[in-house]
Amino acid sequence: MSLYSERRGDYKSAAMPAPALSTRLRAIVGADGVVDRPETLLVYECDGYTLERAAPEVVVLPRTPAEVAAVLRLLAAERIAFVPRGAGTGLSGGTLPVQAPVMVCTSRLNRIEAIDVANRRIVVQAGVVNQWVTNAVRAHGLCYAPDPSSQPACTIGGNVAENSGGPHTLKYGVTTNHVLGVELVLPSGEVVVLGGAVEERPGYDLVGLVVGSEGTFGIVTRATLRLVRAPEAYRTLLAVFESVDAASEAVSGIIAAGMIPAALEMMDRLILEALEQAYHIGLPTDAGAVLLIELDGPAVGLDPQAERVAAVCRHNGVREVRVARDEAERAALWKCRKRAFGAVGRLAPNYCTQDGVVPRTRVPDILRHIAAAAERHRLRIANVFHAGDGNIHPILLFDERDRDEVARVLAAGREILEACVALGGSLTGEHGIGIEKMGQMPLLFGPDDLAAMVRLRAVFDPEGRANPHKIFPDAKVCVETRTPRRQAAM
Amino acid sequence: MSLYSERRGDYKSAAMPAPALSTRLRAIVGADGVVDRPETLLVYECDGYTLERAAPEVVVLPRTPAEVAAVLRLLAAERIAFVPRGAGTGLSGGTLPVQAPVMVCTSRLNRIEAIDVANRRIVVQAGVVNQWVTNAVRAHGLCYAPDPSSQPACTIGGNVAENSGGPHTLKYGVTTNHVLGVELVLPSGEVVVLGGAVEERPGYDLVGLVVGSEGTFGIVTRATLRLVRAPEAYRTLLAVFESVDAASEAVSGIIAAGMIPAALEMMDRLILEALEQAYHIGLPTDAGAVLLIELDGPAVGLDPQAERVAAVCRHNGVREVRVARDEAERAALWKCRKRAFGAVGRLAPNYCTQDGVVPRTRVPDILRHIAAAAERHRLRIANVFHAGDGNIHPILLFDERDRDEVARVLAAGREILEACVALGGSLTGEHGIGIEKMGQMPLLFGPDDLAAMVRLRAVFDPEGRANPHKIFPDAKVCVETRTPRRQAAM
Repeated sequence: MSLYSERRGDYKSAAMPAPALSTRLRAIVGADGVVDRPETLLVYECDGYTLERAAPEVVVLPRTPAEVAAVLRLLAAERIAFVPRGAGTGLSGGTLPVQAPVMVCTSRLNRIEAIDVANRRIVVQAGVVNQWVTNAVRAHGLCYAPDPSSQPACTIGGNVAENSGGPHTLKYGVTTNHVLGVELVLPSGEVVVLGGAVEERPGYDLVGLVVGSEGTFGIVTRATLRLVRAPEAYRTLLAVFESVDAASEAVSGIIAAGMIPAALEMMDRLILEALEQAYHIGLPTDAGAVLLIELDGPAVGLDPQAERVAAVCRHNGVREVRVARDEAERAALWKCRKRAFGAVGRLAPNYCTQDGVVPRTRVPDILRHIAAAAERHRLRIANVFHAGDGNIHPILLFDERDRDEVARVLAAGREILEACVALGGSLTGEHGIGIEKMGQMPLLFGPDDLAAMVRLRAVFDPEGRANPHKIFPDAKVCVETRTPRRQAAM
Repeated sequence: MSLYSERRGDYKSAAMPAPALSTRLRAIVGADGVVDRPETLLVYECDGYTLERAAPEVVVLPRTPAEVAAVLRLLAAERIAFVPRGAGTGLSGGTLPVQAPVMVCTSRLNRIEAIDVANRRIVVQAGVVNQWVTNAVRAHGLCYAPDPSSQPACTIGGNVAENSGGPHTLKYGVTTNHVLGVELVLPSGEVVVLGGAVEERPGYDLVGLVVGSEGTFGIVTRATLRLVRAPEAYRTLLAVFESVDAASEAVSGIIAAGMIPAALEMMDRLILEALEQAYHIGLPTDAGAVLLIELDGPAVGLDPQAERVAAVCRHNGVREVRVARDEAERAALWKCRKRAFGAVGRLAPNYCTQDGVVPRTRVPDILRHIAAAAERHRLRIANVFHAGDGNIHPILLFDERDRDEVARVLAAGREILEACVALGGSLTGEHGIGIEKMGQMPLLFGPDDLAAMVRLRAVFDPEGRANPHKIFPDAKVCVETRTPRRQAAM
């Protein structure tokens, strides 16, 4: 139970009483496909963003795209709002059921439907876990490039909703660069198929519009994904620096030297300490920062490239460069990086992982802003992030029982995002706006821009029933003016 | 003068008489910024798609984004439809002024406004020529990746409208992968700025939506472009095959071997003959097809990769592989490829370059379809295209004075596009739908999908005054129902 759920008061009941709704939903998805006991619903009261919580009234877990459509047709007939959810690993509160009594989980839509090796594409249902895609095509020498840290758990549907990234974004791009088509169930229950066959899409880029729309257009039930050839070889380096500034300079130097590493990740001292406490793998806990740098591609030429990277690091005063000698050492380095969030969990009862972007050259500036915010608000903030993209992930540690500390976390978070925008950056690199950053949208968009987005949304969701109260600070207006009947029932 | 302009009858006058309109426009852009003499207007009666023609009543050539906004405010007040135009190199008739009396050319918006080397981005006005962008940043070791064959003439505004590609799409992607932000003047005359700072864009991807919208949302006046580092080195190969099938197999083999060449272009015998007649450079005119293959990246490792490409070609029965020994030889090979269209112009009085996409593995199938269509309709069709992307460019030769031949060209074109879709492909890889392929949109989209796109368009252009009668076969409905006043005047 959270002490600080400011949004809980917003949450309203459905027009139809929950028991009657559950009965109708069970008729569609079966008895085991509906969750409505209060103690079980607590599982769904937040995703990876835990600063605000609200449990839905009913959770429905369809098993097929057709069942999703049937559920949405029922909700349309009753004009009930809903929130889609994948694995619940999101970090911006996108699945918080604010004024949406029903949560539709796509995690049971877990079939890989078709693999086309020659044309390098795969058709998956929305609940397929990101890692499974690569597992399914590895034998063909292929992989699915976007690899969020939540890769072993997060689903493709969630990745599409949030336009997820990952450490290899620098070279391979984010989810939108790898989605060829989607099947989308509109809030009306109608099923539309967008794109799918080849990269090129005539007319307006509706697939690109759906990717990153955070569940506000309906529920994506299937996706056709682009596969890439698994790199022939890797060179993975850990470069240890005395200071964050020196590491940042090395990042700029590597890019300026014309190399595009597959990944260029930075971890600061607090992260190193947490990792070392958790895994005892000999990380340098007295370093200012380390860079995890990965090169990939044809084996020929990787060693000279790795040497050039090392030379740039030396030029920027690196203390030590370790090169993974084999796949086991590479896996160990990546395990550190990908489990950094878990390790941080040992440092404090709670933490909030922020997302924000600055131009790559402004990384040292934003890190100074973060350090100043930590000091000003008496907080511990760890940094582990995609330095090559300028995509920061400050992790703000706190104890949710300390209401004053929670307030300071929220204030520091706002200030850091404002600093990102002031430095010429943006609010989110890969976690989405969700409910966390709605309040900051006006930093980037004027009222007319936001109004245009709300009108765009209305093309797909004229009643504002799909994931209401997300992305747009004024989305409420859209909902209230467009669904008088549901509004009246609240 | 065209004998076959079926659309000419569609063309209607503005609500305001042309002379009065010209006077008001001259007040905004100056005396030399308005073209309205009939003989001069003929220059604007078509773009690179010459099968249909219609001259506008007035062409206006603003010099600044502010002048564009002022022109559109005037047209909004008078509810006059307009068509945007860049350099007029488009190949799908996107700038044909159908029911749009005014043409707004952005070619004088030719300033490069800012270059940010460290963060690799550049801000240009819409009329800046594609090639100038690379020229402006070459000294910094950077370049702008999308390079349509019309690169020395086409403008960034046109590239954004059509989501242009080019030979290096295979490795670097199309225009939408390189546009960080746009300034868009809406048909109302309002100016909106979308994106611009970093790659990541919160909220709906409006920049992605504007790229490829073919001028139907308004007029793009500025763009922030992503720059990439100019490759350190190239290896450019010309592989000569006995047959198109053998060359196609080599294309699949190269990709399957895990290489991503920067370019993988195919030219068939008719193109080789045309090029040889024009440039006398010793091309093998008795070959079935040649592949122009370019590898780029760090110099280290390029030679072994080139050897692997050559090995795949040998495995597929290549007759000969030539490797450009220096930059002069590389330039000569590319000159052939990029001037292929010009060379074809010597074979017949007219030609039409089609665009279409098939999954890469279906390239041999579509080439058989094209050959069969040529025979069935007694036409000569040359092929020069982006084989690595499956993006075909059959060039249909004809004489526009021969009405029967023109009819056969149109029929063959339709059949080839239908075959692309039937093979699991799409209607356009890089030229856009324009007016050429509107009739085929229902092959890919159902009535609901098309209606959704028309509603999306209405978010930006509620009156349907920006480039009306383009992309959507039923766009006319949108225009007629939404602008009763203008409709009544026609």
